[in-house]
Amino acid sequence: MSQPINFTPGPSQLYFTVEDHVRTAFRDGIPSLSHRSKQYEGIYKKAVDGLRELLGLPSNYAIVFTGSANEIWERIIQNLVEEKSFHLVNGSFSKRYFEIAQLLNKKPAKLEVPLGKGFDTVTIPAGTELLAITHNETSSGVSLPLDFIYQLGEQHPTALITVDAVSSLPFPDFDYTKLDSVFFSVQKGFGLPAGLGVWMINDKCIAKAEQLMSKGISIGSYHSIPSLYSFAVKNQNPETPNVLGIYLLGQVVEDMLRRGIGTIRKETEYKAAILYQVLENHPLLKPFVQDVAFRSKTVVVADCGEHTESVTKLLQSKGMHPGDGYGSFKKSQLRFANFPTHSKEQFELLVDTLNAFRV
Amino acid sequence: MSQPINFTPGPSQLYFTVEDHVRTAFRDGIPSLSHRSKQYEGIYKKAVDGLRELLGLPSNYAIVFTGSANEIWERIIQNLVEEKSFHLVNGSFSKRYFEIAQLLNKKPAKLEVPLGKGFDTVTIPAGTELLAITHNETSSGVSLPLDFIYQLGEQHPTALITVDAVSSLPFPDFDYTKLDSVFFSVQKGFGLPAGLGVWMINDKCIAKAEQLMSKGISIGSYHSIPSLYSFAVKNQNPETPNVLGIYLLGQVVEDMLRRGIGTIRKETEYKAAILYQVLENHPLLKPFVQDVAFRSKTVVVADCGEHTESVTKLLQSKGMHPGDGYGSFKKSQLRFANFPTHSKEQFELLVDTLNAFRV
Repeated sequence: MSQPINFTPGPSQLYFTVEDHVRTAFRDGIPSLSHRSKQYEGIYKKAVDGLRELLGLPSNYAIVFTGSANEIWERIIQNLVEEKSFHLVNGSFSKRYFEIAQLLNKKPAKLEVPLGKGFDTVTIPAGTELLAITHNETSSGVSLPLDFIYQLGEQHPTALITVDAVSSLPFPDFDYTKLDSVFFSVQKGFGLPAGLGVWMINDKCIAKAEQLMSKGISIGSYHSIPSLYSFAVKNQNPETPNVLGIYLLGQVVEDMLRRGIGTIRKETEYKAAILYQVLENHPLLKPFVQDVAFRSKTVVVADCGEHTESVTKLLQSKGMHPGDGYGSFKKSQLRFANFPTHSKEQFELLVDTLNAFRV
Repeated sequence: MSQPINFTPGPSQLYFTVEDHVRTAFRDGIPSLSHRSKQYEGIYKKAVDGLRELLGLPSNYAIVFTGSANEIWERIIQNLVEEKSFHLVNGSFSKRYFEIAQLLNKKPAKLEVPLGKGFDTVTIPAGTELLAITHNETSSGVSLPLDFIYQLGEQHPTALITVDAVSSLPFPDFDYTKLDSVFFSVQKGFGLPAGLGVWMINDKCIAKAEQLMSKGISIGSYHSIPSLYSFAVKNQNPETPNVLGIYLLGQVVEDMLRRGIGTIRKETEYKAAILYQVLENHPLLKPFVQDVAFRSKTVVVADCGEHTESVTKLLQSKGMHPGDGYGSFKKSQLRFANFPTHSKEQFELLVDTLNAFRV
């Protein structure tokens, strides 16, 4: 109990092997390695090959790195949209993705529903070039079912389907052949220090970026898709990247491969099930997301109302740190990350403690 | 002699206190800290306040963070240039800064001189909005005298003066009142793991970015100057940043303040002087930069011709790693970083070894 358990949804608790890998990195001189050296190319390749295997990524996808998922929002709009993106907005992060398209002088459209809700019927304007879908809204704990996402894609075969999986991967078992770009940042499900975005793009994305460039539209410079891709095939980055971050990602992905993605997914399901169960049955607490179909497995949001502060204190007294509710729900909700680093035992302690909570 | 000495100009040798600070960071839970917490704001403030003191930065400057110096090149062009930037090009990095302006569909102009040369008279086109000056060309070891930079600024009072000091800071004692923006990345003179760019911008830069935005020109989104600035005043970043990198920067700056910037500068002068002296007097080696006025103190480039490989082997046999020559000079030059982490004793060993080199 000496080490507190961090349930904040990001930055979250480090994957339990990270500190050891950092020690090894310093011993082996990784942080002062040239990003143009063969040794660095090996580090890049290990991270990318490991991710491909862990996530089952088809060979028509490239994996490139940015500074953050915020940057990926911007690069997607810049590289893949001439005018019209369409955004499913149901929380602060999906809303921000839409606003970025506005700031880049595109003409985005959106369907917006209240925080905590999913989507029913979606009507997408003709000529939409790109669908911006947030798989898991970190602010509200709403996750979109995969079949719903695939269906949108099938109904709009000319649009690129992009999925923000910032706070869900590596949990979702995406069929990447039905998507065009998926991205995440490493400080959530992968349990790594923040400062790295991971962007997966298929050949259709590369072609679209080249098409915009050939029309004379600026798609950025060092981090345009063609620039990123031209370095990725050499296992390099255009700029001096977060070398330590990419090294740690490769190591943690290797650890996850050893554990097995099937095991990680089953444990995630189990931990989510026991937490939702206690919230469903509790006299004072309840799940924020009403519709079971839209409940996130990786970020569980609890409505604690007037008891929020007491619940927080009780958890903290047992060495557990919940995440605050987002924005206006700061005083009435708590958020619990359910990431691969959180053990079944930690979740059982969490659930037992919540179960015993009374006024 | 067990630990090799890394003279590559970046990523370079870590500042000698970094590994200890990383240990403390993990012990204190820094890598999983929320970037919206009070504790994080303290980390941000410490780094920024420390840099202000170390560099003597006036109060009309803000300090903001990006993923790399490459990103700062792009953000400068995007935020501070409607059409016309003017670039002093004398190597690969200053050339890249120019090319980024082209890729962003601006209309940059340049004065280009061969690698290894400085500039004589500079004629700047009327209507130039921004001067892009690379203080220290990492590729060639050419550094521009500060008075030359200030003079350009005085002759063009309506242009913003931006200085790329990627591989020179904290050595140069800039008069920031004669400049408008200065930037660097942390893996060079500050001896930190790569993955963080540090961008200093004065009030004129903030006003210019706002002016472009009010004209309906896109200046980017989360990393536009107004967005970065609105978070910087709260000691925060728009995105989840490289928290560990910013923490380590604050710690190393504190170490440098304790040592004294005067001492660091004097030692840098001394180490550069003894290295240039041996190159000047050596029968087989010579400095690449002929004109003494343009010789960099922080990246010293040696013409080793056909002896390049033998010199490298000799140095490596004594535990020292020189940097390769840049681009087409890979086989005929060596580059030596002279950063604050490189001790006088290490430079004396380097100089003695080079001095003893014969065929």
